[in-house]
This record gives sequence, C-alpha cells and structure tokens, in this order.
Amino acid sequence: MSTQSRKDKGAKNIEKLKELGNGIFKELKQEKDPKITIPLRSLTNTWFDEKEGILRIGKKTQKRGFLNLSHARKFMQNILVAAGCKKLIASGKTTSIRDLYYMLKHTIPGTKENTFEDQVESDPIIEDLEVEMDILREDLHLFASNRGALVGDITIIDSGDVIDCRRMGSGGWSIPSIVEDDVIQFKDADAGFVLFVEKDAMWRRLNEDKFWKTYNCILIHGQGMAPRGVRRLLHRLNKELKLPVYVFVDNDPWGLYIYSVIRQGSINLAYESKRMAVPSARFIGLSSFDQEKYDLPKNVTMRLEDVDIKRCKEIIGYDWFKKEKWQDEINYMLKKGVKLELEALSNKGIDFATKVYLPDKLKNKDFI
Amino acid sequence: MSTQSRKDKGAKNIEKLKELGNGIFKELKQEKDPKITIPLRSLTNTWFDEKEGILRIGKKTQKRGFLNLSHARKFMQNILVAAGCKKLIASGKTTSIRDLYYMLKHTIPGTKENTFEDQVESDPIIEDLEVEMDILREDLHLFASNRGALVGDITIIDSGDVIDCRRMGSGGWSIPSIVEDDVIQFKDADAGFVLFVEKDAMWRRLNEDKFWKTYNCILIHGQGMAPRGVRRLLHRLNKELKLPVYVFVDNDPWGLYIYSVIRQGSINLAYESKRMAVPSARFIGLSSFDQEKYDLPKNVTMRLEDVDIKRCKEIIGYDWFKKEKWQDEINYMLKKGVKLELEALSNKGIDFATKVYLPDKLKNKDFI
Repeated sequence: MSTQSRKDKGAKNIEKLKELGNGIFKELKQEKDPKITIPLRSLTNTWFDEKEGILRIGKKTQKRGFLNLSHARKFMQNILVAAGCKKLIASGKTTSIRDLYYMLKHTIPGTKENTFEDQVESDPIIEDLEVEMDILREDLHLFASNRGALVGDITIIDSGDVIDCRRMGSGGWSIPSIVEDDVIQFKDADAGFVLFVEKDAMWRRLNEDKFWKTYNCILIHGQGMAPRGVRRLLHRLNKELKLPVYVFVDNDPWGLYIYSVIRQGSINLAYESKRMAVPSARFIGLSSFDQEKYDLPKNVTMRLEDVDIKRCKEIIGYDWFKKEKWQDEINYMLKKGVKLELEALSNKGIDFATKVYLPDKLKNKDFI
Repeated sequence: MSTQSRKDKGAKNIEKLKELGNGIFKELKQEKDPKITIPLRSLTNTWFDEKEGILRIGKKTQKRGFLNLSHARKFMQNILVAAGCKKLIASGKTTSIRDLYYMLKHTIPGTKENTFEDQVESDPIIEDLEVEMDILREDLHLFASNRGALVGDITIIDSGDVIDCRRMGSGGWSIPSIVEDDVIQFKDADAGFVLFVEKDAMWRRLNEDKFWKTYNCILIHGQGMAPRGVRRLLHRLNKELKLPVYVFVDNDPWGLYIYSVIRQGSINLAYESKRMAVPSARFIGLSSFDQEKYDLPKNVTMRLEDVDIKRCKEIIGYDWFKKEKWQDEINYMLKKGVKLELEALSNKGIDFATKVYLPDKLKNKDFI
C-alpha cells in the first residue's frame, strides 16, 4: 500500500472516531443521556459459522450510558481510549497497549479519582472499541507484545525496507505486531505453502536444515500461541498469495487449540475472525496416532495432567471440533492418557522431523 | 570466522570430550572407580572480581563417582550428555536443550530405568559439562529458547547471509541463541554505542522513531531478562568493536538485576562471566530519582510489592551493588516505596523517551 493509501486509511478511521465523538456531543447538547452500543464478547454470543469455517460474534449488544452510575467510569474510559487512538493515528505513530494505559492515566482535576487504576481496566476497553467501531486494534495504531519469526521463500517489504527472507541467517525476521498492508507488503513469493510451527526450537531445527529451501515454503513460529501479528500475517499470506497453511503443534489440548485459533479464530476475539482466521488451514501434526505410526518409544510421551484432561473435555465439546476425525483425535488422546511434544521426534534422530516426519506427512497429504 | 576455523573449533572441542571419555575408559581398565571433577555452582562458590568487574566461580569442586550409589545416575547422565554433544558437534548441527533431553532419553535395556525422567535432570548436567570442560553451551551446539531483536547501524553476517540491520523494518533481526563467531560476524559497524532495552514495546517506540539513526547506535531488546544469545552478542559488540553498552530498564529490583547480569554476570552462570559479561556497561535508567527529575506524575508509579521489597533487600547486599550510587538508588526506591516502568515515560508524551529522556541522559552522561 502506498503512503497515500496509508494516509487514506488513517483518515477514514479518524473520521469514524470523530463520528463517535460528534454523536455523543450532539446528544449532550440535546440534554439526552449519551449511550455507546457494544457487541457482547462472550461464549454465549459466539457462534461457529460452518459455511465460512470461522467463529463469529453474535447480535447481542450492551449499552454503556453516561448517566448510569455503574457505567459512567467505563463510558469515560471508552471516550479517553478513542481520543487517544485518534491522536495516535493522526501522529502516524504506533504504541503498545501498556503505553496507551500510561498515556491516558491521570488524576481527574479536583478529585482523587484516576482515569485508570490498572492496565486491566484499559485492555478490555480497547477490545470494546475495536468491535464497536469495527476497526482492528492494529489500525488504531496499537500493538501487543510481539513474538515469532519468519524465514523462507519470500521477500517482504517492512516499512519500506526490502527484506529477503531467504537470507535471514539463523535468526530470521522478527514478525512485528502490526502487519497491516500499509506497513508490510509481499514481493517475489515463490513459496508453495506456509508451515506454522508452535515452538521456536523446532523452527530452528527446520531452518538449520534449510527445510524451507528443499520444500519451497515459508517457515513461521509463534513461540507458543500465535500472537495477533502472526495470525494476521498467516491470514494475509493465505488470502492474498493463496498459500496453503499447515500447522505443526504439540499433541496436547493446547496445541490443538493453537491450531483451532489459527483456523477458526478465538472466542474472545471472535469479531476479528474474518480478518485473522485461515479457515483452510490444515493440521499436519502431531496427531494422537503418531506415536504408533512413527514408532516413537513410550518413554517420550508424557502423562496428561488433570488440567490437560479438563481442557480436552472442554474442546471436544466445541462445535468446530465436532468432525469425526477431531473427535477420534481427542478421544484417543484421552484414552491413552498421554501427550507428545514436537521435540519427542528427536528421539528418532536429530533430523527425523526434517527428513522423515514432515516429508512423509506432506507426500501422503496426511492432514486433518 | 571461516568454515575452516569453525571446523577447527569443533575438532578441538571434540578432542576435549574424547579426553573425558578416554580418561574414564583408562580408569575402568585399571579397575579404578572413575570420577568426574566439577566446579561447584552456587552463591558460596561465587565471588565478585572487582578488578575485572565480573562475577567469578571459586575453587570449590565436587567429585562425581561411578561406584558411588548416590552419584551413579548422574555419572551416567554426564557421560550421555557428553556423548550427545560430541555427536552434535561432529554432525555440524545445533539443537535445543529440550531436544537433547529427548534425544538421550531411553530405557536402559533389561531394566525399567530411564536415562532421564525429565528435562529438570538434563539441564543442570549440561551446565556441569560446560564448567567441567570449559566449553560454552553454544560451542556444544546447544541452544536455549531465543528472544530479542536488533536494528541499527551495523551489518551482520549470520550463517553466511548478509543482514543490513539498517533495513530491517519494524520487526528487526531476531537474535539467535548461538551467536559465536563461527556463525555470526560483524561488518560495516558505524554505530557509536549499543542501547539495550529491557522491553520490546520501548524498543519498537525507539525503532519507529528511528532513534538508532539519529543517535547512530545499535538497538537491542531482550524481552525481559537478556537471554544468553543477547548477553553474548553484547559482550562481542563491546569487546570486538569497542562499543559502549548502555542499559535501559524498569526502575524496580528486577530491572536493576537485568542490568547487573549484563554487566557482571549471574550467580548461577558465574563460570561464563568472562565470555558473557560487559563490565563497562552503564546504567542509563530508569533511576529512582527520575520521577522528580523528569516531573512524572505520582500516579504513574506503582507500589512496591512484598516480593519487590524482599528482592531489593537481597540485591542491596550483593558486593557488586556496594557502590554508594547503587546503595542510594536502592535505598531511595525502598524509601519511596514505588517502582516505575519504562512505559511511564509515555505519560509525558508518546515520544518523550526518544526526544527528551534519552537525549538528555546521553548528553549529560547521566549514567551509573
């Protein structure tokens, strides 16, 4: 996106924020009680859109009124966050959600009341604003902590700098939190697919073995749960470059959930699924059946803890895990009572994942 | 370092590991009880070398005997880890310490005994091996989880790839865990100093404002405590390129300790200080006196928790915090009873750190 269209995007969002303010101002002038309408973010207002393959937010909303004693504080905070973001967009700067909290924190003159006591107060307000305004946090110029790195068969333009991801050494390009198309653009993408790896240790194994070169792909890790920047990047690589996305995670309920968040979106941020999710993402492993399939010794498995079992029983009930293959996966995990980490593959040799496991899965299209 | 000298280094370390094995083999042939001597890693065997300005490991050692029932398991593990590392070096591959655990885990034939039950068993054995062999973990081809990123006025060669750190966009170059000179080399370093920032959010603020360009420096963050790769890189930038290192951390005991680990080394890894520490590193902030000095409002401070107070009282007793300036810093923190995060500077304006705070500190050489 050119600098011009970047400005256009910012200008459009500033307009939206101004409308919010003007609406409230108008109501105040008419001596009405101004109200903000916010879609409800909760499991009860989340539904699985099977046709699109993503989680969506429902139609339930809540009103936040100025003259309601139990709403007034949040009402004020909502306006403060909106005003802060408007200023950020206008200045062309981005900042962290923690920084925003500090920027907006002050004692209201003539009182002992602080606008915010803790970041715990400002974070949900940001999410409220995202959904009430239908503007991604990233377009409000806010970022969360970033994690994750990328190497592979693509050139990326980041803030005008041309980054050849085929020549990023052992470290890789650190994926920023904000990867919107006014900051990050794609160039010369020769890759045939994207492999997302849960853990950076496995990512480095694959990078060191130049797996991405042999298999002509892009290699991304998220250091655990994929952060927003990584999810949004996966979405863009899939949507704009039509690259299939494969997800490679631990065989435990947390790994399965990381996969499902990449594919369908998360419950808390269901309103973002359409810009974050990759409904065509496939699960390449580790499967509950891999221990036998690849003859891994029993002693590299780990016993499911109580929290794991509890989590398995939760996710097995989610609509988006209802497919028979998923039910089989989760039930078999529970039946065996063990989990399996990506690193367990190394028991069969240091490059077993690179040389045997992944090539085998790709060749046989052994995905879920 | 050329490929040849990389091989030389590996060959030398393989020789060292072979000597360990041959020594034990010889003792076994003579029907002696083979023993391994390991320097003790504990606070009681750590001393502050004021002349060098680093923490050092003392002379106390422990013996690990094969025929001692309470040593036999660890003795076996020690040999397994040494053999595993020898194999890694010979193959030219690197791996994570978790991976090594999985690689070496197996059930001893004819028994129900596993070589390792948990990574908690293998990690300290790796540290033992480092100190008994005087070989850095990185030279044993092992890495821990990596964190941290770099941008600035330098070109880095990483595994043969030329990375211009002036053109790394908003993400930066992700700093790998292993930054030894056979993997990472420096080129065209025009920077005048290195600024280490505890938090990635502040790092991104400075990167977005192109602070490193204006002030001609290298900008590094460690996402909290600097991991080994970052510490080793700081050491190399300081030693080989003679770049001063400034440390920019939260004003709390944890921030002070991050600074002290970069400068003097850590207690647990005192044997590595000479290859990791930067004894000339300076503390640029946040100081306990900054709130008044920069007129930050009271409500951006946070009350010291009990754990913070406890930690303050611990570090104030450390030999390397005995200087009057440090005693004043810590005592004043305790007296005021508050801490201050880097983000608190944003209360004075989003680019206050870039435009006022850091330039001021640099200009007045206001360091500790």
